Amino acid sequence: MKKILKTNKIDHIAIVVPDLRLALKHYESIFGLKASEVIISTSQKVKISYLNFSNIQLEIIQPLDSDSPINKFLIKNPSGGLHHIGLEVDDINESYKVSEGLNLNPIEKPINGHHGKPLFFLNPKKMMNLLFEILSKK
Amino acid sequence: MKKILKTNKIDHIAIVVPDLRLALKHYESIFGLKASEVIISTSQKVKISYLNFSNIQLEIIQPLDSDSPINKFLIKNPSGGLHHIGLEVDDINESYKVSEGLNLNPIEKPINGHHGKPLFFLNPKKMMNLLFEILSKK
Repeated sequence: MKKILKTNKIDHIAIVVPDLRLALKHYESIFGLKASEVIISTSQKVKISYLNFSNIQLEIIQPLDSDSPINKFLIKNPSGGLHHIGLEVDDINESYKVSEGLNLNPIEKPINGHHGKPLFFLNPKKMMNLLFEILSKK
Repeated sequence: MKKILKTNKIDHIAIVVPDLRLALKHYESIFGLKASEVIISTSQKVKISYLNFSNIQLEIIQPLDSDSPINKFLIKNPSGGLHHIGLEVDDINESYKVSEGLNLNPIEKPINGHHGKPLFFLNPKKMMNLLFEILSKK
């Protein structure tokens, strides 16, 4: 039987902005939502906050500095933009194997995100030019 | 009291692809999902299909021809990419007024989408460079 990459849900939509505080203030006031505390990840070199809509969260990312891997995106899109889609899975190691089997060229082996949950990314070239994060439920 | 743009949920994440059939075949086989029938909208000059994840749908769009407003995006991103976020609201006319009041420069007055539901878009320049569709629940 052919394997599939079984997902629970789309966990988040990630966007990149040049100024996190400004973006949060703007979206909070427009949508009447309260953003999460800002998380600073020195390992991933990003600042992150979440806006929780009823069914999904918007992950808002600002690179910490010019060395951040996310900074490349900001150089290409100085005003920011949509960055990736995060899919939640039950078993990250199984999902990694399935992704390899499906020839989706995972960019690297699962690493722990700022929230402690393991995650990996699929090669966008294998996914119709979309960047997908595969994120463990726990 | 300051008005907010009250949303029910994020209705969809929209992506643009150069070849809808190819994209559907690819995503269906990877995620084990069945895409909706392909809808051809001659007024909007697009072909659309949906992939339903448990909490949100992925709207997959291909321009019908080079006159399609979506074609500009494809010229800039020949392999496709993330295009917009669709927010569901209860009252589209009230949302339109609120958007004007919040200085979000709605691009045009609500028009009926291919599904018959009225919708409008906010000016990305007023939304941190993100394109938001505001879509009526009914």
